[in-house]
Amino acid sequence: SVNPDLASERQTASFSVEKLTALLDGDAEQTRIRRAVVEAVESDPVFSRENQYFQTQNERYEAAVRKAVHLQKKMHEMGWTENGPEYKYIYRALSGDVAFLLHRVFMRSISVLGSDEQIAKWIPLATQHKLIGSYAQTELGHGTYLQGLETTAVFDTATQEFILNTPKISAMKWWPGDMGRSATHTVVFAQLYVHGKCYGIHPFIVQIRSLQDHSLCPGITAGDIGPKMNFEHIDNGYLLLKNVRIPRENMLSKFCEVRPDGSYVRQGSQKINYFTMTTVRISLISDEVLTPLMKACTIAIRYSVVRRQSKLKPGEQEAKILDYQTQQEKLLPQLAAAYAFHFINDYLQELFSRGYTEIQRKNFDRLPELHALSSGFKAVITQHCTAGVEICLRACGGHGYSLLSGLPSLYTKILASCIYEGENTILLLQTARFLIKCFMAANAGQPVPPSVTYLAAVKHGKCPAKNKLDFLSPDIYTEAYQHVAVRLTSSTAAKLQDLIQSGVKKHDAWNQCTVQLVQAAKAHCHYIAVKNFAETVEKLETKAGIQKIMKHLCDLFALHGIFSNTGAFLHDGYTSAAQMDMVTASYLDLLAVIRKDAVPLVDAFDFTDKSLNSALGSYDGQVYQRLYEWAQKSPTNQMNPAYEKYLKPLLHNTLSKL
Amino acid sequence: SVNPDLASERQTASFSVEKLTALLDGDAEQTRIRRAVVEAVESDPVFSRENQYFQTQNERYEAAVRKAVHLQKKMHEMGWTENGPEYKYIYRALSGDVAFLLHRVFMRSISVLGSDEQIAKWIPLATQHKLIGSYAQTELGHGTYLQGLETTAVFDTATQEFILNTPKISAMKWWPGDMGRSATHTVVFAQLYVHGKCYGIHPFIVQIRSLQDHSLCPGITAGDIGPKMNFEHIDNGYLLLKNVRIPRENMLSKFCEVRPDGSYVRQGSQKINYFTMTTVRISLISDEVLTPLMKACTIAIRYSVVRRQSKLKPGEQEAKILDYQTQQEKLLPQLAAAYAFHFINDYLQELFSRGYTEIQRKNFDRLPELHALSSGFKAVITQHCTAGVEICLRACGGHGYSLLSGLPSLYTKILASCIYEGENTILLLQTARFLIKCFMAANAGQPVPPSVTYLAAVKHGKCPAKNKLDFLSPDIYTEAYQHVAVRLTSSTAAKLQDLIQSGVKKHDAWNQCTVQLVQAAKAHCHYIAVKNFAETVEKLETKAGIQKIMKHLCDLFALHGIFSNTGAFLHDGYTSAAQMDMVTASYLDLLAVIRKDAVPLVDAFDFTDKSLNSALGSYDGQVYQRLYEWAQKSPTNQMNPAYEKYLKPLLHNTLSKL
Repeated sequence: SVNPDLASERQTASFSVEKLTALLDGDAEQTRIRRAVVEAVESDPVFSRENQYFQTQNERYEAAVRKAVHLQKKMHEMGWTENGPEYKYIYRALSGDVAFLLHRVFMRSISVLGSDEQIAKWIPLATQHKLIGSYAQTELGHGTYLQGLETTAVFDTATQEFILNTPKISAMKWWPGDMGRSATHTVVFAQLYVHGKCYGIHPFIVQIRSLQDHSLCPGITAGDIGPKMNFEHIDNGYLLLKNVRIPRENMLSKFCEVRPDGSYVRQGSQKINYFTMTTVRISLISDEVLTPLMKACTIAIRYSVVRRQSKLKPGEQEAKILDYQTQQEKLLPQLAAAYAFHFINDYLQELFSRGYTEIQRKNFDRLPELHALSSGFKAVITQHCTAGVEICLRACGGHGYSLLSGLPSLYTKILASCIYEGENTILLLQTARFLIKCFMAANAGQPVPPSVTYLAAVKHGKCPAKNKLDFLSPDIYTEAYQHVAVRLTSSTAAKLQDLIQSGVKKHDAWNQCTVQLVQAAKAHCHYIAVKNFAETVEKLETKAGIQKIMKHLCDLFALHGIFSNTGAFLHDGYTSAAQMDMVTASYLDLLAVIRKDAVPLVDAFDFTDKSLNSALGSYDGQVYQRLYEWAQKSPTNQMNPAYEKYLKPLLHNTLSKL
Repeated sequence: SVNPDLASERQTASFSVEKLTALLDGDAEQTRIRRAVVEAVESDPVFSRENQYFQTQNERYEAAVRKAVHLQKKMHEMGWTENGPEYKYIYRALSGDVAFLLHRVFMRSISVLGSDEQIAKWIPLATQHKLIGSYAQTELGHGTYLQGLETTAVFDTATQEFILNTPKISAMKWWPGDMGRSATHTVVFAQLYVHGKCYGIHPFIVQIRSLQDHSLCPGITAGDIGPKMNFEHIDNGYLLLKNVRIPRENMLSKFCEVRPDGSYVRQGSQKINYFTMTTVRISLISDEVLTPLMKACTIAIRYSVVRRQSKLKPGEQEAKILDYQTQQEKLLPQLAAAYAFHFINDYLQELFSRGYTEIQRKNFDRLPELHALSSGFKAVITQHCTAGVEICLRACGGHGYSLLSGLPSLYTKILASCIYEGENTILLLQTARFLIKCFMAANAGQPVPPSVTYLAAVKHGKCPAKNKLDFLSPDIYTEAYQHVAVRLTSSTAAKLQDLIQSGVKKHDAWNQCTVQLVQAAKAHCHYIAVKNFAETVEKLETKAGIQKIMKHLCDLFALHGIFSNTGAFLHDGYTSAAQMDMVTASYLDLLAVIRKDAVPLVDAFDFTDKSLNSALGSYDGQVYQRLYEWAQKSPTNQMNPAYEKYLKPLLHNTLSKL
């Protein structure tokens, strides 16, 4: 039975939840397919996550391998293929709790970087899981800056082999998933040396464990890097290479080859590599970042209408905590952000598809823009969503802090997305570099990519809003965001030029501007996210209340951004203090409006109880019963390990005297 | 041997590290005592935390009990007493990793709330650990709002007993530490009923487990609430009471008593209860909040001079990451905040001592101010430090995400401080209520407590700064903070009045202002923190470079606060855009200045390697070796639990074909 405090929230929805779900999925047919996959996965006990919060790292790893192996069978059984429409829902249905994810990266790197012969040899083996692959790039002492990698691969003409070595401890491979305990093979990135000359970083296929008995191959030292904040199910590993010999054919050679005589040949364009990174950054947004935020919002908002605390009105019963303005101010902007980023993800996907079409025609013109946008949005979205999940966790008070709420694991997992696939600050600086370059070009009258043409049109006007309702006009707030993005980019470009003109060396000048460059990059992405949300709302169908509620969320997303960062808008007087008070008033009004639809808005995300795996967030809102039932299953409620040894002798003392 | 990249940082310290340590401790004698305690604790293998990151919740709990039991022996051995000078360092030396902390709260509540007879009976038993106590206040459905607690205690005149019950699931006691598996007794807070009349919440001593065999007493259901984000060593528990009878004498009766005939007598003042909460909130700041931030800064800053990444100058070796402005911008403000809050903690302690003296003279006049300041600062400091630890964690990239860095556990533990002992938003609203009241009083010409007299003097001037150096003047920035605090308080007070005058009911009006009230409360605390830091610096001795470096940190703390919240300062034109650019320039300059002393500034916190328990943060900076050595000890590097069952059959398939 549904908790009446939750049930009542659903009776007054201003829109059709089912229609909104279909919009989020793409269409009703996609919703149907997704639900079928979720149903098939969740009804299979092998994929259960039921006791996950009680398991050790070893148990989580074992379960993840079991699931990965079972998944192969399941896919066959269900007729799901990697090219089928169901495929993209599998990972979501598993909540990512499965091993061999790096195996897929291993395969992709061979497909992208390997010659036709290499692809023909390795891909079928990998596809049939006749080996388990990994991807060994990051080293103990080296991450983002690939040129700094220290692992070496020296070509030995005599034997036609590469000899791989880890010259010092900081060169040890560190972090690769699936490598600590599972992988038999890995793609190792190493500095290539031929005849004493270094040719830079190249990828090599290296076998690390025996297919016979899984023992480490000669010259290989490898293992698990131990406990992390999350990802207990993944065996992130370390790898030391000592004179490991591999055949010449194992260097992935689509773009570069070492011929038998030791001559080095470069062929084709490596620009495609940037495209690969772009692909990864865009693809992680949906599964690794948006889904956790949507889950956190679902849990926190459902809990906030079930939890009652203090009295809002004297004489009445305790109030639902979502009725407090401060609670709305915590949760509803996160909900709006989840929708905003869902739509920007659609935008990036589309941009990416168009880019891909162009690239297949060997036209790389749109690559810099795509790289800048994917880098910037990867950073902005992961940062924003990580903060959002943390806010949801904290908004649930003590119960949010229990692992049983599901929120701690959502948080500790999403946090990693700020670091992997490009550390966020570095990514934002790449976006900033693009912005500065485009700003200079635009001001010199040169053409610039579509997403940055606005930089050319620096306007010195003032915000025209006259009352608080004007701030519910997308034109008004989008213009304000644009103004801030232009101002931050142009002022930082000016500072940079001033420094250089005053004699500061270029790299020092750049470093002295980086805090502000990061601000400019964020403002650019924020502007595009607001603009895209507004444009998306414009195009939505008006029936079933969808457009209206999405408009409210768009307004909230935009006004929350201004309210949280008023200085950027006030700085040059574009927005006046009086206007800022209007923003605040409109923003606070919106909280009360959206609060009414908060539960239907999270219901539309359509998470099953099993996928939420939360004692606080279930569809029926039976929070307290579930917390109690789940806690009783905890291993800490088995035998007390401290009793015989410590508590009994301590208390024994009492017995004789009390 | 010390990593040369770290060693070089120490050679150029602008001040005496040892003198700064003494300043932080109070004086050199305190430093000596503290070091002796730390040495005694850390040299004792029973207190080791060596394998902590590999342990399960059960193992952590067992170790914490073992340490608690051993601590009694150790204290006796060392001649340490609860009243001795060493006592306050023990908990820090143990890094809080010890059981029976609630036993102390059990004792304190009896001392504060019990009659002389009750104190005489229970305190000796507790002191000698002849029982293990806990403190059962929070319920599954009830936290901060004590009046909402649902557990009942009905007086039975016939038997002279109270009958305790948990009337429904939301009334179950939930969270009390030491209760899940250890406690034999607990203080239960319940609604008192006599002859059918409810007298509100009262405390009762209830035995929950047998002293004989530790089995649950009749009518008691209790256990552990399961896994949490941290505090694995603590058995936070649940408790259900079913017709549990306790003697009349077990109601703690210093302030209220039920006589044998059922008559209810209230005696003395309960104001002291507020004082108890104040005590707890102030006392947690140092151990639970500042220490973790200081540790996180130590780890992240030492790591940031050892870690090299990318090139700052072409042709040179990769740069220390602390040389990047963006890294400085992440870490150095946290360092400044750690010092700022250390000094505000001194301020609060002093205020508290003075308040205590007054209270002993039955003068409760200063209690509201003390309550407002302790509530506000508990919220502001826990919030700021939690964010700071997270920033430190993220600033260490992937290695920060490894449990072996020590940062994840610092983060997950400090996070709880935002929730326990008063949820932060609720506390800030209590501070705000005090501010509004005082603002009204001050404007009506009535006297107000010292910390808020500034609210009476609303100034409409402008910030007088003329160049960026002016913003290194404490008068300039302290005045700016004061201006913002006054503006936010007065504008919210005006909004509140407007709403009420326009017919909105008082409680609704309050709710509609809470987002802004929270801002006002934060601004008030921030102002006092800046002012106090500036005044502290003023009084420091100028020799040994201490005052100079503390002045830099004070400036950084103040300017970072303005830089991060420019809107508040720009809003009414008190600070102009040109002045804000000066703030930015001075702030960024300061980063480069303080960066030079960053390592000595964290060395001054004087944490031993054992207390940091971090592979990244040790004094010698041998980061990579330590990560590797520690990882090898992980249980994930024992037998592979997935091999025989899953990997072998999978790969077996290959053997026949490869």
